[in-house]
Amino acid sequence: MLRAISERAMKAPTTGGMQLYSVVVTRKEPLRTDLAEAHFSQPAAAGAPVIVTVCADLHRFERWCRISGTEPGFENFLSFTSAMLDATIFAQQFCTIAEMEGLGTCYLGTTLWQAPKISELLHLPDHVVPVCGIAVGWPYGEGEATERLPLEALYHTETYTDFSDEEVKELYKVKDEYPANRGYVEEHSKPSLAHVFTEVRYPRQMNEEFTASIKSYLERQGLL
Amino acid sequence: MLRAISERAMKAPTTGGMQLYSVVVTRKEPLRTDLAEAHFSQPAAAGAPVIVTVCADLHRFERWCRISGTEPGFENFLSFTSAMLDATIFAQQFCTIAEMEGLGTCYLGTTLWQAPKISELLHLPDHVVPVCGIAVGWPYGEGEATERLPLEALYHTETYTDFSDEEVKELYKVKDEYPANRGYVEEHSKPSLAHVFTEVRYPRQMNEEFTASIKSYLERQGLL
Repeated sequence: MLRAISERAMKAPTTGGMQLYSVVVTRKEPLRTDLAEAHFSQPAAAGAPVIVTVCADLHRFERWCRISGTEPGFENFLSFTSAMLDATIFAQQFCTIAEMEGLGTCYLGTTLWQAPKISELLHLPDHVVPVCGIAVGWPYGEGEATERLPLEALYHTETYTDFSDEEVKELYKVKDEYPANRGYVEEHSKPSLAHVFTEVRYPRQMNEEFTASIKSYLERQGLL
Repeated sequence: MLRAISERAMKAPTTGGMQLYSVVVTRKEPLRTDLAEAHFSQPAAAGAPVIVTVCADLHRFERWCRISGTEPGFENFLSFTSAMLDATIFAQQFCTIAEMEGLGTCYLGTTLWQAPKISELLHLPDHVVPVCGIAVGWPYGEGEATERLPLEALYHTETYTDFSDEEVKELYKVKDEYPANRGYVEEHSKPSLAHVFTEVRYPRQMNEEFTASIKSYLERQGLL
């Protein structure tokens, strides 16, 4: 079933027709659990029977170029971003089709953070970078739509128009007042939801530590 | 119609519920033409009535954090990649829904290449980076599905398994033999399709020049 979904998702647009991505479908133990642990054993990763890792893949295309007698010039950041776009577009198409087929999917936002570790587990060669991990399984139920900003927050006509402080406050009201979010604020005893994001979920020091790790990983491969 | 499509596409997954993206919909002259020129006047950009630019946007979320009395720690590469993923996931959801509504869409792969120029044209503040440009219009006809690699080329089970040279050659046969691709090889008098990619479409020097430009643009904003 995952093969059939991938085959359909493969019709999604791709940079210059190059298909600069690969998919690794992991379900066997102990590898699946090791992979879930690389994703910090977050519930979606730990609880799913399958983890799909969509990778930016310049390696395969480069091999084809060399076998065809020409040297590719992809050892740079621009080429990495093209492959990262290809991988993400494929990943989202995969999720859309999988959900249409009744499966449940959940992105693991920790994939690039843990690229060095995940690459090791999945035996990824250089120039194959894990970009989108997706936990896949049959959902227990329908789930709930999570809250979203009003369209005005992100839709601009002609050029980008910035907001006043008052407008920003108003636009984020839906987040500040969403019951689950109020719960997080209480649980962590923070003054506001924004504090939960900056101090609990995405604190600067953590962002900077993972930045250092992903940068040295990409630099070693000549992709930064 | 584009507003309604965006409203639906906004349900797509997003990093930590942060919606780190914005959309700029440009159709008025002379801005639309200026934007198409930033995309090197490629036919899809020059011929489309509307250009939709999906941006990685940390700026809006950072403003909300500051207004809420806390300092975000997003001035780093990791946070930029989260926003880039969010923008790309939204962009692909936008394209899927637009195509389901009968519109035609075409990604402009030159968006990050020309981020400095496009940011200027669209008045993007710092920490708003154009990631996916999409040309949108009513298509003349059905169009044709372009060639794709066999699924085996990109689908791996458990871990990544590399191919032999012979297998790579075999997997790319469908590309080498695709009539339009044979036409490009002839048109440019190259020994193979791979040479068209490495010498005409994505030559090393060009990739390196745009890498330098996008890197200095991101570095100036503390995102690299």
